[in-house]
Amino acid sequence: MRFTHEQRLDDGVLEREFTLDEIPGILWTPASASAPTPLILLGHPGGLHKMYPRLVARARHCAAEGFAAATIELPGGGDRPRSAAAEQARADLHRALEAGEPVDDEIVDRLVLPLVDKAVPEWQAALDALLSLPEIGGPVGYAGGVIAIGIRLAVVEPRISAALLFAGSYVPRTMFEQARQVTIPLQVLLQWDDEGNDRQLALDLFDAFGSKEKTLHANMGGHTGVPHFEGDAGNRFFARHLK
Amino acid sequence: MRFTHEQRLDDGVLEREFTLDEIPGILWTPASASAPTPLILLGHPGGLHKMYPRLVARARHCAAEGFAAATIELPGGGDRPRSAAAEQARADLHRALEAGEPVDDEIVDRLVLPLVDKAVPEWQAALDALLSLPEIGGPVGYAGGVIAIGIRLAVVEPRISAALLFAGSYVPRTMFEQARQVTIPLQVLLQWDDEGNDRQLALDLFDAFGSKEKTLHANMGGHTGVPHFEGDAGNRFFARHLK
Repeated sequence: MRFTHEQRLDDGVLEREFTLDEIPGILWTPASASAPTPLILLGHPGGLHKMYPRLVARARHCAAEGFAAATIELPGGGDRPRSAAAEQARADLHRALEAGEPVDDEIVDRLVLPLVDKAVPEWQAALDALLSLPEIGGPVGYAGGVIAIGIRLAVVEPRISAALLFAGSYVPRTMFEQARQVTIPLQVLLQWDDEGNDRQLALDLFDAFGSKEKTLHANMGGHTGVPHFEGDAGNRFFARHLK
Repeated sequence: MRFTHEQRLDDGVLEREFTLDEIPGILWTPASASAPTPLILLGHPGGLHKMYPRLVARARHCAAEGFAAATIELPGGGDRPRSAAAEQARADLHRALEAGEPVDDEIVDRLVLPLVDKAVPEWQAALDALLSLPEIGGPVGYAGGVIAIGIRLAVVEPRISAALLFAGSYVPRTMFEQARQVTIPLQVLLQWDDEGNDRQLALDLFDAFGSKEKTLHANMGGHTGVPHFEGDAGNRFFARHLK
Protein backbone atom coordinates (compact mmCIF):
# COMPACT_ATOMS: atom_id res chain seq x y z
CA MET A 1 0.00 0.00 0.00
CA ARG A 2 1.52 3.26 -1.17
CA PHE A 3 0.13 6.67 -0.21
CA THR A 4 0.23 8.96 -3.24
CA HIS A 5 -1.42 12.15 -2.04
CA GLU A 6 -2.78 13.55 1.19
CA GLN A 7 -4.78 16.57 2.27
CA ARG A 8 -6.63 17.84 5.34
CA LEU A 9 -10.29 18.57 4.61
CA ASP A 10 -11.81 21.70 6.16
CA ASP A 11 -13.31 19.69 9.01
CA GLY A 12 -9.89 18.28 9.89
CA VAL A 13 -10.45 14.86 8.33
CA LEU A 14 -7.23 13.48 6.83
CA GLU A 15 -7.78 12.22 3.28
CA ARG A 16 -5.09 9.99 1.80
CA GLU A 17 -5.13 8.54 -1.69
CA PHE A 18 -3.29 5.27 -2.09
CA THR A 19 -2.62 2.49 -4.55
CA LEU A 20 -2.48 -1.17 -3.67
CA ASP A 21 -1.30 -3.48 -6.45
CA GLU A 22 -2.26 -0.76 -8.96
CA ILE A 23 -5.76 -0.42 -7.50
CA PRO A 24 -6.46 3.17 -6.46
CA GLY A 25 -8.16 3.86 -3.17
CA ILE A 26 -8.86 6.55 -0.59
CA LEU A 27 -8.58 6.47 3.20
CA TRP A 28 -10.20 9.04 5.46
CA THR A 29 -9.34 9.24 9.16
CA PRO A 30 -10.96 11.44 11.82
CA ALA A 31 -9.34 14.76 12.76
CA SER A 32 -8.61 13.75 16.31
CA ALA A 33 -8.27 10.03 16.76
CA SER A 34 -6.53 9.29 20.06
CA ALA A 35 -6.83 5.51 19.76
CA PRO A 36 -7.01 3.11 16.79
CA THR A 37 -10.40 3.63 15.20
CA PRO A 38 -12.99 1.25 13.78
CA LEU A 39 -13.06 1.17 9.99
CA ILE A 40 -15.94 1.37 7.54
CA LEU A 41 -15.41 0.15 4.00
CA LEU A 42 -17.44 2.31 1.61
CA GLY A 43 -18.90 0.30 -1.26
CA HIS A 44 -19.95 2.02 -4.51
CA PRO A 45 -20.87 1.08 -8.08
CA GLY A 46 -17.45 1.89 -9.57
CA GLY A 47 -15.81 5.07 -10.78
CA LEU A 48 -14.06 6.65 -7.78
CA HIS A 49 -13.72 10.04 -9.45
CA LYS A 50 -17.39 10.27 -10.40
CA MET A 51 -18.47 8.93 -6.99
CA TYR A 52 -16.05 11.15 -5.03
CA PRO A 53 -18.56 13.82 -3.88
CA ARG A 54 -20.90 11.20 -2.40
CA LEU A 55 -18.06 9.11 -0.97
CA VAL A 56 -16.35 12.02 0.76
CA ALA A 57 -19.68 13.14 2.24
CA ARG A 58 -20.21 9.65 3.67
CA ALA A 59 -16.59 9.51 4.89
CA ARG A 60 -16.91 12.86 6.71
CA HIS A 61 -20.08 11.58 8.32
CA CYS A 62 -18.24 8.43 9.47
CA ALA A 63 -15.34 10.51 10.77
CA ALA A 64 -17.70 12.67 12.82
CA GLU A 65 -18.68 9.48 14.67
CA GLY A 66 -15.02 8.53 15.17
CA PHE A 67 -14.79 5.99 12.35
CA ALA A 68 -12.13 5.78 9.65
CA ALA A 69 -13.51 5.11 6.16
CA ALA A 70 -11.89 3.68 3.08
CA THR A 71 -12.75 2.71 -0.45
CA ILE A 72 -11.06 1.20 -3.49
CA GLU A 73 -11.84 1.32 -7.20
CA LEU A 74 -13.88 -1.59 -8.52
CA PRO A 75 -12.56 -3.92 -11.25
CA GLY A 76 -13.31 -2.21 -14.57
CA GLY A 77 -14.19 1.07 -12.84
CA GLY A 78 -12.48 4.45 -13.36
CA ASP A 79 -9.16 3.99 -15.14
CA ARG A 80 -8.87 0.29 -14.35
CA PRO A 81 -8.76 -2.12 -17.32
CA ARG A 82 -12.17 -3.03 -18.70
CA SER A 83 -13.26 -6.60 -19.16
CA ALA A 84 -14.76 -7.30 -22.58
CA ALA A 85 -17.25 -9.74 -21.04
CA ALA A 86 -18.39 -7.20 -18.46
CA GLU A 87 -18.77 -4.49 -21.13
CA GLN A 88 -20.84 -6.90 -23.21
CA ALA A 89 -23.06 -7.73 -20.22
CA ARG A 90 -23.51 -4.02 -19.47
CA ALA A 91 -24.44 -3.34 -23.10
CA ASP A 92 -26.96 -6.20 -23.01
CA LEU A 93 -28.42 -4.79 -19.80
CA HIS A 94 -28.84 -1.32 -21.26
CA ARG A 95 -30.37 -2.75 -24.42
CA ALA A 96 -32.95 -4.64 -22.33
CA LEU A 97 -33.70 -1.57 -20.21
CA GLU A 98 -34.08 0.71 -23.24
CA ALA A 99 -36.39 -1.80 -24.90
CA GLY A 100 -38.43 -1.89 -21.70
CA GLU A 101 -37.85 -5.63 -21.47
CA PRO A 102 -37.39 -7.53 -18.21
CA VAL A 103 -33.69 -8.00 -17.47
CA ASP A 104 -32.78 -11.63 -17.96
CA ASP A 105 -31.21 -13.43 -14.98
CA GLU A 106 -28.48 -14.62 -17.32
CA ILE A 107 -27.45 -11.00 -18.06
CA VAL A 108 -27.36 -10.16 -14.35
CA ASP A 109 -25.21 -13.23 -13.71
CA ARG A 110 -22.75 -12.25 -16.44
CA LEU A 111 -22.63 -8.68 -15.15
CA VAL A 112 -22.38 -9.21 -11.40
CA LEU A 113 -20.86 -12.62 -10.59
CA PRO A 114 -17.43 -12.05 -12.21
CA LEU A 115 -17.34 -8.60 -10.59
CA VAL A 116 -17.99 -10.12 -7.16
CA ASP A 117 -15.40 -12.86 -7.76
CA LYS A 118 -12.77 -10.29 -8.66
CA ALA A 119 -13.67 -7.47 -6.25
CA VAL A 120 -14.03 -9.42 -3.01
CA PRO A 121 -10.40 -10.60 -2.80
CA GLU A 122 -9.33 -7.04 -3.60
CA TRP A 123 -11.38 -5.64 -0.73
CA GLN A 124 -9.85 -8.31 1.50
CA ALA A 125 -6.33 -7.33 0.42
CA ALA A 126 -7.20 -3.68 1.12
CA LEU A 127 -8.46 -4.73 4.53
CA ASP A 128 -5.15 -6.48 5.26
CA ALA A 129 -3.25 -3.31 4.35
CA LEU A 130 -5.59 -0.91 6.16
CA LEU A 131 -5.66 -2.94 9.38
CA SER A 132 -1.85 -2.97 9.42
CA LEU A 133 -1.87 0.83 9.86
CA PRO A 134 -1.42 1.84 13.50
CA GLU A 135 -4.30 4.34 13.37
CA ILE A 136 -6.84 1.72 12.24
CA GLY A 137 -7.92 -0.74 14.89
CA GLY A 138 -11.14 -2.37 13.78
CA PRO A 139 -13.78 -3.68 14.14
CA VAL A 140 -14.79 -3.29 10.51
CA GLY A 141 -18.08 -2.52 8.81
CA TYR A 142 -19.07 -2.51 5.14
CA ALA A 143 -21.43 0.18 3.89
CA GLY A 144 -22.95 0.68 0.47
CA GLY A 145 -23.56 -1.01 -2.84
CA VAL A 146 -22.81 -3.18 -4.84
CA ILE A 147 -25.02 -5.29 -2.57
CA ALA A 148 -23.77 -8.57 -4.06
CA ILE A 149 -20.20 -7.61 -3.05
CA GLY A 150 -21.43 -6.78 0.45
CA ILE A 151 -23.18 -10.14 0.73
CA ARG A 152 -20.14 -12.13 -0.40
CA LEU A 153 -17.85 -10.12 1.91
CA ALA A 154 -20.22 -10.68 4.84
CA VAL A 155 -20.06 -14.43 4.22
CA VAL A 156 -16.35 -14.93 3.52
CA GLU A 157 -14.66 -12.18 5.57
CA PRO A 158 -14.89 -12.78 9.33
CA ARG A 159 -13.29 -9.40 10.10
CA ILE A 160 -16.47 -7.64 8.92
CA SER A 161 -18.77 -7.28 11.94
CA ALA A 162 -21.74 -5.40 10.54
CA ALA A 163 -22.97 -4.25 7.15
CA LEU A 164 -25.18 -1.46 5.85
CA LEU A 165 -26.33 -2.56 2.41
CA PHE A 166 -28.02 -0.55 -0.36
CA ALA A 167 -30.62 -2.70 -2.08
CA GLY A 168 -30.33 -0.74 -5.27
CA SER A 169 -28.50 -2.94 -7.74
CA TYR A 170 -28.94 -6.21 -9.54
CA VAL A 171 -28.59 -9.38 -7.50
CA PRO A 172 -27.94 -12.75 -9.14
CA ARG A 173 -30.43 -15.38 -7.96
CA THR A 174 -27.55 -17.51 -6.71
CA MET A 175 -26.72 -14.79 -4.18
CA PHE A 176 -29.91 -15.67 -2.28
CA GLU A 177 -28.23 -18.85 -1.06
CA GLN A 178 -25.31 -16.75 0.19
CA ALA A 179 -27.69 -14.26 1.80
CA ARG A 180 -29.03 -17.10 3.95
CA GLN A 181 -25.47 -17.66 5.23
CA VAL A 182 -25.06 -14.06 6.39
CA THR A 183 -25.29 -13.86 10.18
CA ILE A 184 -23.77 -10.45 11.04
CA PRO A 185 -26.07 -7.53 11.97
CA LEU A 186 -27.46 -5.84 8.87
CA GLN A 187 -29.17 -2.59 8.02
CA VAL A 188 -30.62 -2.64 4.50
CA LEU A 189 -31.57 0.55 2.66
CA LEU A 190 -34.29 0.34 0.02
CA GLN A 191 -35.48 3.26 -2.10
CA TRP A 192 -39.15 2.33 -2.30
CA ASP A 193 -39.90 4.36 -5.44
CA ASP A 194 -36.69 3.46 -7.30
CA GLU A 195 -38.08 2.61 -10.73
CA GLY A 196 -34.87 1.00 -11.88
CA ASN A 197 -34.90 -1.42 -8.98
CA ASP A 198 -36.96 -4.56 -8.41
CA ARG A 199 -38.66 -3.85 -5.09
CA GLN A 200 -40.01 -7.36 -4.63
CA LEU A 201 -36.56 -8.85 -5.21
CA ALA A 202 -35.11 -6.50 -2.59
CA LEU A 203 -37.80 -7.55 -0.09
CA ASP A 204 -37.19 -11.23 -0.88
CA LEU A 205 -33.47 -10.68 -0.35
CA PHE A 206 -34.07 -8.97 3.00
CA ASP A 207 -36.23 -11.94 3.97
CA ALA A 208 -33.47 -14.37 2.95
CA PHE A 209 -30.70 -12.92 5.12
CA GLY A 210 -29.85 -15.30 7.96
CA SER A 211 -28.97 -12.53 10.42
CA LYS A 212 -30.88 -12.44 13.69
CA GLU A 213 -30.56 -8.66 13.75
CA LYS A 214 -31.58 -7.25 10.41
CA THR A 215 -33.40 -3.98 9.81
CA LEU A 216 -34.89 -2.69 6.58
CA HIS A 217 -35.15 1.06 6.06
CA ALA A 218 -37.36 1.88 3.08
CA ASN A 219 -37.60 5.51 1.99
CA MET A 220 -38.95 7.66 -0.80
CA GLY A 221 -36.81 9.85 -3.04
CA GLY A 222 -35.85 7.69 -6.02
CA HIS A 223 -32.63 5.80 -6.72
CA THR A 224 -30.18 8.47 -5.62
CA GLY A 225 -32.48 10.22 -3.14
CA VAL A 226 -31.55 8.41 0.08
CA PRO A 227 -32.66 10.90 2.76
CA HIS A 228 -29.96 12.74 4.65
CA PHE A 229 -31.15 11.32 7.98
CA GLU A 230 -30.12 7.82 6.86
CA GLY A 231 -26.52 8.97 7.27
CA ASP A 232 -27.19 9.45 10.98
CA ALA A 233 -29.12 6.19 11.16
CA GLY A 234 -26.15 4.41 9.59
CA ASN A 235 -23.74 5.92 12.10
CA ARG A 236 -25.91 4.79 14.98
CA PHE A 237 -26.14 1.30 13.52
CA PHE A 238 -22.35 1.09 13.30
CA ALA A 239 -21.91 2.73 16.72
CA ARG A 240 -24.01 -0.13 18.18
CA HIS A 241 -21.92 -2.80 16.52
CA LEU A 242 -18.39 -1.45 16.06
CA LYS A 243 -17.81 0.28 19.39
CA MET B 1 -60.24 17.04 32.29
CA ARG B 2 -59.75 16.15 35.92
CA PHE B 3 -56.41 15.05 37.36
CA THR B 4 -56.98 12.18 39.81
CA HIS B 5 -53.47 11.17 40.86
CA GLU B 6 -49.94 12.37 40.31
CA GLN B 7 -46.45 11.13 41.06
CA ARG B 8 -42.85 11.93 40.19
CA LEU B 9 -41.06 8.99 38.57
CA ASP B 10 -37.46 8.32 39.59
CA ASP B 11 -36.14 10.13 36.52
CA GLY B 12 -38.13 13.24 37.46
CA VAL B 13 -40.89 12.74 34.88
CA LEU B 14 -44.25 13.95 36.23
CA GLU B 15 -46.96 11.32 35.72
CA ARG B 16 -50.56 12.47 36.08
CA GLU B 17 -53.61 10.26 35.74
CA PHE B 18 -56.75 12.01 34.56
CA THR B 19 -60.29 11.39 33.47
CA LEU B 20 -62.00 13.18 30.64
CA ASP B 21 -65.74 12.48 30.28
CA GLU B 22 -65.22 9.25 32.25
CA ILE B 23 -62.35 8.14 29.97
CA PRO B 24 -59.18 7.47 31.95
CA GLY B 25 -55.87 8.71 30.67
CA ILE B 26 -52.29 9.44 31.67
CA LEU B 27 -50.10 12.46 30.95
CA TRP B 28 -46.33 12.42 31.34
CA THR B 29 -44.31 15.66 31.23
CA PRO B 30 -40.52 16.04 31.26
CA ALA B 31 -38.73 16.74 34.55
CA SER B 32 -37.47 20.14 33.51
CA ALA B 33 -39.58 21.76 30.83
CA SER B 34 -38.82 25.47 30.68
CA ALA B 35 -41.13 26.16 27.74
CA PRO B 36 -44.35 24.52 26.49
CA THR B 37 -43.36 21.15 25.06
CA PRO B 38 -44.42 19.23 21.96
CA LEU B 39 -46.84 16.37 22.69
CA ILE B 40 -46.83 12.78 21.55
CA LEU B 41 -50.05 10.79 21.75
CA LEU B 42 -49.24 7.17 22.61
CA GLY B 43 -51.54 4.73 20.82
CA HIS B 44 -52.03 1.18 22.15
CA PRO B 45 -54.39 -1.77 21.65
CA GLY B 46 -56.51 -1.07 24.75
CA GLY B 47 -56.14 -1.92 28.43
CA LEU B 48 -54.18 0.92 30.04
CA HIS B 49 -53.36 -1.10 33.15
CA LYS B 50 -51.99 -4.07 31.23
CA MET B 51 -50.15 -1.80 28.79
CA TYR B 52 -48.76 0.49 31.51
CA PRO B 53 -45.21 -0.92 31.66
CA ARG B 54 -44.70 -0.48 27.93
CA LEU B 55 -46.46 2.90 27.84
CA VAL B 56 -44.46 4.38 30.72
CA ALA B 57 -41.21 3.17 29.11
CA ARG B 58 -42.17 4.92 25.86
CA ALA B 59 -43.26 8.04 27.78
CA ARG B 60 -39.95 8.24 29.68
CA HIS B 61 -38.15 7.92 26.38
CA CYS B 62 -40.23 10.78 24.93
CA ALA B 63 -39.59 12.90 28.04
CA ALA B 64 -35.83 12.38 27.70
CA GLU B 65 -36.10 14.10 24.31
CA GLY B 66 -38.17 16.93 25.79
CA PHE B 67 -41.59 15.71 24.67
CA ALA B 68 -44.72 15.35 26.79
CA ALA B 69 -46.62 12.11 26.18
CA ALA B 70 -50.23 11.20 26.82
CA THR B 71 -52.61 8.32 26.30
CA ILE B 72 -56.26 7.50 26.93
CA GLU B 73 -58.12 4.24 27.34
CA LEU B 74 -59.72 2.85 24.19
CA PRO B 75 -63.48 2.29 23.88
CA GLY B 76 -64.17 -1.15 25.41
CA GLY B 77 -60.65 -1.30 26.91
CA GLY B 78 -59.77 -1.66 30.61
CA ASP B 79 -62.82 -0.86 32.76
CA ARG B 80 -64.69 0.98 30.03
CA PRO B 81 -68.06 -0.48 28.97
CA ARG B 82 -67.81 -3.30 26.45
CA SER B 83 -69.73 -3.24 23.20
CA ALA B 84 -71.56 -6.52 22.49
CA ALA B 85 -70.84 -6.14 18.77
CA ALA B 86 -67.11 -5.65 19.36
CA GLU B 87 -66.97 -8.63 21.72
CA GLN B 88 -68.71 -10.75 19.08
CA ALA B 89 -66.25 -9.62 16.40
CA ARG B 90 -63.33 -10.39 18.73
CA ALA B 91 -64.74 -13.87 19.42
CA ASP B 92 -65.17 -14.48 15.69
CA LEU B 93 -61.57 -13.35 15.10
CA HIS B 94 -60.20 -15.71 17.75
CA ARG B 95 -62.29 -18.57 16.40
CA ALA B 96 -60.85 -18.03 12.91
CA LEU B 97 -57.29 -17.78 14.27
CA GLU B 98 -57.65 -20.92 16.38
CA ALA B 99 -59.08 -22.83 13.42
CA GLY B 100 -56.11 -21.64 11.36
CA GLU B 101 -58.50 -20.02 8.90
CA PRO B 102 -57.83 -16.76 7.06
CA VAL B 103 -59.46 -13.85 8.87
CA ASP B 104 -62.39 -12.64 6.86
CA ASP B 105 -62.37 -8.94 5.87
CA GLU B 106 -65.90 -8.71 7.21
CA ILE B 107 -64.70 -9.68 10.73
CA VAL B 108 -61.89 -7.09 10.58
CA ASP B 109 -64.40 -4.44 9.51
CA ARG B 110 -66.75 -5.30 12.40
CA LEU B 111 -63.83 -5.28 14.85
CA VAL B 112 -61.91 -2.19 13.79
CA LEU B 113 -64.21 0.31 12.03
CA PRO B 114 -66.56 0.98 14.98
CA LEU B 115 -63.51 1.25 17.24
CA VAL B 116 -61.95 3.87 14.96
CA ASP B 117 -65.26 5.76 14.67
CA LYS B 118 -65.57 5.94 18.45
CA ALA B 119 -61.91 6.36 19.46
CA VAL B 120 -60.86 9.13 17.07
CA PRO B 121 -63.26 11.82 18.43
CA GLU B 122 -62.14 10.82 21.93
CA TRP B 123 -58.48 11.34 21.03
CA GLN B 124 -59.44 14.69 19.52
CA ALA B 125 -61.25 15.70 22.73
CA ALA B 126 -58.21 14.65 24.73
CA LEU B 127 -56.07 16.75 22.42
CA ASP B 128 -58.30 19.79 23.04
CA ALA B 129 -57.89 19.33 26.79
CA LEU B 130 -54.16 18.59 26.70
CA LEU B 131 -53.32 21.54 24.45
CA SER B 132 -55.19 23.86 26.83
CA LEU B 133 -52.62 23.07 29.55
CA PRO B 134 -49.93 25.78 29.78
CA GLU B 135 -47.09 23.21 29.85
CA ILE B 136 -48.15 21.62 26.53
CA GLY B 137 -47.43 23.67 23.44
CA GLY B 138 -47.53 21.39 20.44
CA PRO B 139 -46.78 20.45 17.73
CA VAL B 140 -48.34 17.02 18.17
CA GLY B 141 -47.31 13.55 17.03
CA TYR B 142 -49.13 10.22 17.21
CA ALA B 143 -47.12 7.09 18.00
CA GLY B 144 -48.23 3.49 18.16
CA GLY B 145 -51.03 1.14 17.26
CA VAL B 146 -53.95 0.72 16.55
CA ILE B 147 -52.71 1.69 13.09
CA ALA B 148 -56.25 2.27 11.77
CA ILE B 149 -56.78 4.88 14.50
CA GLY B 150 -53.47 6.52 13.59
CA ILE B 151 -54.45 6.66 9.92
CA ARG B 152 -57.86 8.21 10.60
CA LEU B 153 -56.33 10.73 13.03
CA ALA B 154 -53.66 11.65 10.49
CA VAL B 155 -56.40 12.36 7.95
CA VAL B 156 -58.97 14.22 10.06
CA GLU B 157 -56.84 15.96 12.71
CA PRO B 158 -54.72 18.81 11.31
CA ARG B 159 -53.01 19.36 14.67
CA ILE B 160 -51.12 16.08 14.21
CA SER B 161 -47.88 16.87 12.37
CA ALA B 162 -46.16 13.48 12.19
CA ALA B 163 -46.98 9.87 13.02
CA LEU B 164 -45.03 6.79 13.99
CA LEU B 165 -47.30 3.84 13.20
CA PHE B 166 -47.00 0.19 14.26
CA ALA B 167 -48.08 -2.05 11.38
CA GLY B 168 -49.06 -4.82 13.73
CA SER B 169 -52.84 -4.94 13.78
CA TYR B 170 -55.71 -5.59 11.44
CA VAL B 171 -56.51 -2.95 8.87
CA PRO B 172 -59.89 -2.79 7.15
CA ARG B 173 -59.52 -2.66 3.36
CA THR B 174 -61.44 0.62 3.30
CA MET B 175 -58.60 2.22 5.31
CA PHE B 176 -56.36 1.97 2.22
CA GLU B 177 -58.36 4.80 0.65
CA GLN B 178 -57.74 6.90 3.78
CA ALA B 179 -54.04 5.94 3.77
CA ARG B 180 -53.75 7.57 0.34
CA GLN B 181 -55.05 10.81 1.88
CA VAL B 182 -52.34 10.90 4.57
CA THR B 183 -49.73 13.53 3.75
CA ILE B 184 -47.88 14.09 7.05
CA PRO B 185 -44.40 12.56 7.57
CA LEU B 186 -44.65 8.93 8.63
CA GLN B 187 -42.38 6.34 10.15
CA VAL B 188 -43.93 2.86 9.98
CA LEU B 189 -42.68 -0.01 12.15
CA LEU B 190 -43.14 -3.55 10.87
CA GLN B 191 -42.13 -6.68 12.76
CA TRP B 192 -41.00 -8.78 9.80
CA ASP B 193 -41.39 -12.16 11.53
CA ASP B 194 -44.68 -11.35 13.30
CA GLU B 195 -46.66 -14.50 12.54
CA GLY B 196 -49.95 -12.98 13.62
CA ASN B 197 -49.54 -10.13 11.15
CA ASP B 198 -50.06 -10.03 7.40
CA ARG B 199 -46.71 -8.77 6.11
CA GLN B 200 -47.87 -8.23 2.54
CA LEU B 201 -50.83 -6.18 3.73
CA ALA B 202 -48.48 -4.03 5.83
CA LEU B 203 -46.22 -3.47 2.80
CA ASP B 204 -49.23 -2.63 0.62
CA LEU B 205 -50.39 -0.17 3.26
CA PHE B 206 -46.96 1.48 3.41
CA ASP B 207 -47.07 1.77 -0.37
CA ALA B 208 -50.55 3.36 -0.22
CA PHE B 209 -49.66 6.23 2.13
CA GLY B 210 -49.75 9.55 0.28
CA SER B 211 -46.95 11.10 2.35
CA LYS B 212 -43.91 12.39 0.50
CA GLU B 213 -41.74 11.53 3.50
CA LYS B 214 -42.49 8.01 4.63
CA THR B 215 -40.01 5.53 6.06
CA LEU B 216 -40.54 1.86 6.78
CA HIS B 217 -38.47 0.23 9.54
CA ALA B 218 -38.77 -3.55 9.42
CA ASN B 219 -37.15 -5.55 12.21
CA MET B 220 -36.95 -9.08 13.56
CA GLY B 221 -38.10 -10.09 17.04
CA GLY B 222 -41.74 -11.11 16.72
CA HIS B 223 -44.92 -9.16 17.46
CA THR B 224 -43.83 -7.64 20.78
CA GLY B 225 -40.08 -7.68 20.09
CA VAL B 226 -39.60 -4.19 18.59
CA PRO B 227 -35.86 -3.56 19.16
CA HIS B 228 -34.90 -1.05 21.81
CA PHE B 229 -33.07 1.12 19.29
CA GLU B 230 -36.39 1.89 17.56
CA GLY B 231 -37.21 4.04 20.62
CA ASP B 232 -34.26 6.26 19.73
CA ALA B 233 -35.16 6.17 16.04
CA GLY B 234 -38.69 7.29 16.94
CA ASN B 235 -37.38 10.17 19.02
CA ARG B 236 -35.17 11.33 16.19
CA PHE B 237 -38.08 11.12 13.76
CA PHE B 238 -40.22 13.31 16.04
CA ALA B 239 -37.28 15.63 16.78
CA ARG B 240 -37.06 16.30 13.03
CA HIS B 241 -40.74 17.09 12.71
CA LEU B 242 -41.95 18.46 16.06
CA LYS B 243 -39.13 20.83 16.99
